[in-house]
Amino acid sequence: MGKPMALNLLKAGFKLRVWNRTPEKALGVLEAGAELAQSLPEVAKGASAIITMLENGAAVTEVLFSSGLVAASEPGTLFIDMSSIAPAIAEDHARLVEARGLHYIDAPVSGGTVGAVGGTLAIMAGGLEAEILDAQHIFGALGTVTHVGPHGRGQLCKLVNQSIVAITIGAVAEGLLLAKKGGADPAKVRQAILGGFCGSRILELHGLRMIEGNFEPGGTVKNQIKDLNAVLEVAQKLKLELPLTKRVHGLFLELAANGGEMLDHSALYLELERKGK
Amino acid sequence: MGKPMALNLLKAGFKLRVWNRTPEKALGVLEAGAELAQSLPEVAKGASAIITMLENGAAVTEVLFSSGLVAASEPGTLFIDMSSIAPAIAEDHARLVEARGLHYIDAPVSGGTVGAVGGTLAIMAGGLEAEILDAQHIFGALGTVTHVGPHGRGQLCKLVNQSIVAITIGAVAEGLLLAKKGGADPAKVRQAILGGFCGSRILELHGLRMIEGNFEPGGTVKNQIKDLNAVLEVAQKLKLELPLTKRVHGLFLELAANGGEMLDHSALYLELERKGK
Repeated sequence: MGKPMALNLLKAGFKLRVWNRTPEKALGVLEAGAELAQSLPEVAKGASAIITMLENGAAVTEVLFSSGLVAASEPGTLFIDMSSIAPAIAEDHARLVEARGLHYIDAPVSGGTVGAVGGTLAIMAGGLEAEILDAQHIFGALGTVTHVGPHGRGQLCKLVNQSIVAITIGAVAEGLLLAKKGGADPAKVRQAILGGFCGSRILELHGLRMIEGNFEPGGTVKNQIKDLNAVLEVAQKLKLELPLTKRVHGLFLELAANGGEMLDHSALYLELERKGK
Repeated sequence: MGKPMALNLLKAGFKLRVWNRTPEKALGVLEAGAELAQSLPEVAKGASAIITMLENGAAVTEVLFSSGLVAASEPGTLFIDMSSIAPAIAEDHARLVEARGLHYIDAPVSGGTVGAVGGTLAIMAGGLEAEILDAQHIFGALGTVTHVGPHGRGQLCKLVNQSIVAITIGAVAEGLLLAKKGGADPAKVRQAILGGFCGSRILELHGLRMIEGNFEPGGTVKNQIKDLNAVLEVAQKLKLELPLTKRVHGLFLELAANGGEMLDHSALYLELERKGK
């Protein structure tokens, strides 16, 4: 996890032993009282809970299993994976962890840096109700946890979240572009409609970015495409058509092809503007 | 306008003379102290401001011009049209009203019955800044007004609103369907993600309708299609491509063709569910 979340755990009184592939990244957390583990198995020593938050499913598989972290952990240890990975991989991890008499919760988050710093993350948890309740003191230091279903469904919920975010960014981009081209003041339009039925955090935050032309990430187009790939993969397995997800996925791919891959995902506005020229 | 808005104007101390094609509809307002006009020209007698709120542009044209309402109004009268009509028609109305030395503001609203009753409507105003400021005591009784641009741009802003609403309904429908088919609890998923980046009034209100299977309107699919037709018409004039608006328009047309025309627009969920079968 990032520094803001780690600091919130320390602030809540937890003893924290941390590991990072790039140890310098842990400096701020060490200064605040965390202990540095020299290896991944060392993280497990005496730990009652182990939290992972990594880039993708392969990285989690490597850290949990190839590195010996799970093997070194003590009986009853709870693994909380807060990474955003494919639901099917999370289900596999849960099975493998439980087969060793250990516990597992998939618990990806939404809310960005603002939520991480403020301890107001939305945490989407998949697993056993009782284990999620038991871990409430941990989750409570980071945000608000909701139990959405069995193992893997926390990750599914995150995909739902990412899909709604992507389409809503598209909705706001089309709307603000229409406002601008039609001769209204997009900033005033945003302000006016925030109070109505289309009020949303996306209109508030990403809408402001579009108006200010501020496309420094934030969440990159590249990551948005990765998430939408995962959504469409799951949907295909479920034989589910998601026409708007598919359409916005196509638009993000075009934006990336036009050089926008490392911009904030609100830059979808630029792609729509390009089409209107 | 409907009864809740009229009652809020009375509550704020305004003297109100009302007219309705179906006089019985005015009964509740008359009981609360309004006066009934016997004809449209009589509405204008001594009025400093005249508010219209009708079904479409043709109805507004008829009430303002064919009925003699504008012709009977006194010098300096302010016309506030709170109907949702095409921006181009609102611009025409503004020109015709101003040509007679009268004033005009297009001021459609968003926020539904809840907003009308609570006096918390989002009011999107097109016209002259000074005239909108002068009418603040009227708008303030009904909700929050924002001046978004010249005449007609209030209506444009409403179209922006309707387009974002439609696409966001589609986003929430796809997300909750994915949650359900993937084995998560849609109600818990909604609750979990409301606190994150995809939090929106649509997820809150229409998302709840989808989960409860409550598709009593509310805003009908028929009206949503009417609005999206208007959006696409304006976009075409502006040579603007709106891919998601177009896609969700297509989905609403399919839903209507499958018998959903008079359902609440959140019933888009049913159409997506049908596709997944």
